[in-house]
Amino acid sequence: MTHRVLTGITTTGTLHLGNFVGAVRPAIAASREAGVESFFFMADYHALIKCDDPARIERSRLQIAATWLAAGLDTSRVVFYRQSDIPEIPELTWLLTCVTSKGQMNRAHAYKGAVDANVAAGEDPDAGVTMGLYSYPILMAADILMFNAHRVPVGRDQIQHIEMARDVAQRFNHLFGQGREFFVLPEAQVDETMELLPGLDGRKMSKSYDNVIPLFEGGAKALKEAIARIVTDSRLPGEPKDPQGSHLVSIFDAFATAEEREAFRAELRAGLAWGEAKQRLYDLIEAQIGPMRLRYEALMAHPEQIEAILQAGAARARAIASPLLAELRHAVGLRRFEPIQAAAAPQVKAKVALPVFKQYREADGQFYFKLSAHDGRVLLQSQAFAGGRDAGEWVKKLKTDGAAALASAPVALGEGVAADEVAQALAALIAAAEA
Amino acid sequence: MTHRVLTGITTTGTLHLGNFVGAVRPAIAASREAGVESFFFMADYHALIKCDDPARIERSRLQIAATWLAAGLDTSRVVFYRQSDIPEIPELTWLLTCVTSKGQMNRAHAYKGAVDANVAAGEDPDAGVTMGLYSYPILMAADILMFNAHRVPVGRDQIQHIEMARDVAQRFNHLFGQGREFFVLPEAQVDETMELLPGLDGRKMSKSYDNVIPLFEGGAKALKEAIARIVTDSRLPGEPKDPQGSHLVSIFDAFATAEEREAFRAELRAGLAWGEAKQRLYDLIEAQIGPMRLRYEALMAHPEQIEAILQAGAARARAIASPLLAELRHAVGLRRFEPIQAAAAPQVKAKVALPVFKQYREADGQFYFKLSAHDGRVLLQSQAFAGGRDAGEWVKKLKTDGAAALASAPVALGEGVAADEVAQALAALIAAAEA
Repeated sequence: MTHRVLTGITTTGTLHLGNFVGAVRPAIAASREAGVESFFFMADYHALIKCDDPARIERSRLQIAATWLAAGLDTSRVVFYRQSDIPEIPELTWLLTCVTSKGQMNRAHAYKGAVDANVAAGEDPDAGVTMGLYSYPILMAADILMFNAHRVPVGRDQIQHIEMARDVAQRFNHLFGQGREFFVLPEAQVDETMELLPGLDGRKMSKSYDNVIPLFEGGAKALKEAIARIVTDSRLPGEPKDPQGSHLVSIFDAFATAEEREAFRAELRAGLAWGEAKQRLYDLIEAQIGPMRLRYEALMAHPEQIEAILQAGAARARAIASPLLAELRHAVGLRRFEPIQAAAAPQVKAKVALPVFKQYREADGQFYFKLSAHDGRVLLQSQAFAGGRDAGEWVKKLKTDGAAALASAPVALGEGVAADEVAQALAALIAAAEA
Repeated sequence: MTHRVLTGITTTGTLHLGNFVGAVRPAIAASREAGVESFFFMADYHALIKCDDPARIERSRLQIAATWLAAGLDTSRVVFYRQSDIPEIPELTWLLTCVTSKGQMNRAHAYKGAVDANVAAGEDPDAGVTMGLYSYPILMAADILMFNAHRVPVGRDQIQHIEMARDVAQRFNHLFGQGREFFVLPEAQVDETMELLPGLDGRKMSKSYDNVIPLFEGGAKALKEAIARIVTDSRLPGEPKDPQGSHLVSIFDAFATAEEREAFRAELRAGLAWGEAKQRLYDLIEAQIGPMRLRYEALMAHPEQIEAILQAGAARARAIASPLLAELRHAVGLRRFEPIQAAAAPQVKAKVALPVFKQYREADGQFYFKLSAHDGRVLLQSQAFAGGRDAGEWVKKLKTDGAAALASAPVALGEGVAADEVAQALAALIAAAEA
């Protein structure tokens, strides 16, 4: 059986070389494993929580989609879509909202963090907290459960959300499954060996440290300039250098084969100048990133091509989401109203002796009709009609439409006759005609 | 300009005569006023909050829909739909969730009531509180704002929710409208003169008091039996009776014309027996409810007809919801990726002098091609091909697909050439070919 792996992609900001090494490259490699069915989605509904700058959301989504495609995401193998193209996801979110306890949301780390910060600052605990921030673990559960993902690669801080998704899934299965398991219980996959690329200054590469090497932004020039700014020790050209502990070497390693790593170390020990070392690092990275950047730029020049790819991905995703949601809707009671099967209403057919319509003309020259029960009681009495044809049409209408036609029909109930009895009599006539 | 009025219909339970007099009848009458565009929806997403019994949800929805239709809701004049048939509503709910402050939800009466009860019982404040109960004012705001309703008829306890909907609408307009008002600010319409029908014992008619007169359930027989159980004083037939303060008279009034009311009072004062009075009350109500009950039963026998009516209503509702949601998505940044207009990237066309592809054969007998910049530098150098045809096809592909073809092309970058420059050169060739 194939194993479903679902990867959510944050769509705010742009990616740097550390994101590429730590997240993009390994995820794409994993998606090529046999027996794995991979789902990658751009979490743009989530992006709305943190960002009220529409232009930024729009631009980021495009850049991030282009980046993953350029980096080699193979959309013939994986399902790649925007969350916001799957209307089944917000609908499932509501179904799950109804079975999620509020206490569970109170315990979510992101929310608790915000509360702690507010309390420390002497503010109201919920100051500045939106319902988006508070309830997004439910949206995340919907993201995962909608596709019955077995595994969700996440950072440590997200493990709790996967546990919440499991809880909600179990509660839903229990309440509505009647022995059936609608949802697979997902497992968090935390990659302990994730490569953390050091930044220019040796700390973890991060925008908040302002020490990043850009991935595609600014082109080869920006890559080269960033590499030139990598901090090294001050050993001169010709002086032997210790590769151990040099973050320039760590960055080199992230792109090099074992042989290249060995050769680079040997050269440094032999006195290779830092300037030369940076040139080698640049050449190594550019050889791998350069062709991707070309694809990236080609894609960015044609957003409509990315749109087409994502629309195709959304169609594949919805082909899975839509039938599951239909089952879930049925399970909770949101069902289409179906015709009643004959077997469900046999008493109408079997037990009521048939009533009779009779048309006639009175001494006043006008036309009338009445409906009589099998015992002769008058159930319905029409008003007068100038022509027999009109009377006949009303009889026909009552025989066809039954009680539904009564509201507008020019008739009165017979004396002492309950409306119920007339409805049943008409239903019996219709049933007999259909039998 | 027409005034939009949106009425949400609870879909749990069945309706009694008090609901008919207090809610159904006046709402239907109001929908017939000139200049009013009425929306009636079955709030079945809301029903999920309180009810995890799917069969009950299914049955209630059907009964309630049939009741409103039987009572005269004219679907040629009003838009009548199930909330759960409008996927735009849960999606809008998420957009609004992101701009709703949690503090506002903390102040909602329904939630505060639950917390107070928990605290009084010594429980955790959020014990048994689901996220559905907590966040449903946001769903309700989406119900209202999705159709830009001006007025929402509600009970006193719901005024706060309309105010929340106004708040959320204002915040959204402010954050994303850029001077545009996406949402009308809805107003609560509390009918102070709403008729409260007394129940059998004179208290307000309510299921919790077990004093209801059924509307359609049990047919004419049940109606008659319930009326027989109306509590009266013990005056004998022939004794004058005081109509003032008699709840039997109040119930009579709810269905009678001014003349009928007068006549009934006169008869009671003249000594009409309570038994007779109850027969008159029954006749009066049955004359109005009987034909509706016939329609109700006809509809209940054909759920597929109700389905068709609701589907038609959903189509009309979505014709309004869908374009508005598209605007809102665009406003928050969830936009389709559109082709870049030529005007937006003129520099490619205008400024780059054209590079040249050259195909040739070397002394080794193999075929090659290269791409040279206008200044003669080699930008791309191909590998060797056994045949000239293969080389030619790659040149053609690069000229057509540009940088997108580079990833798979058997080429290397020229010495010292950045990938950017090649991408620009190929783009320039394509632009020139298209010009």
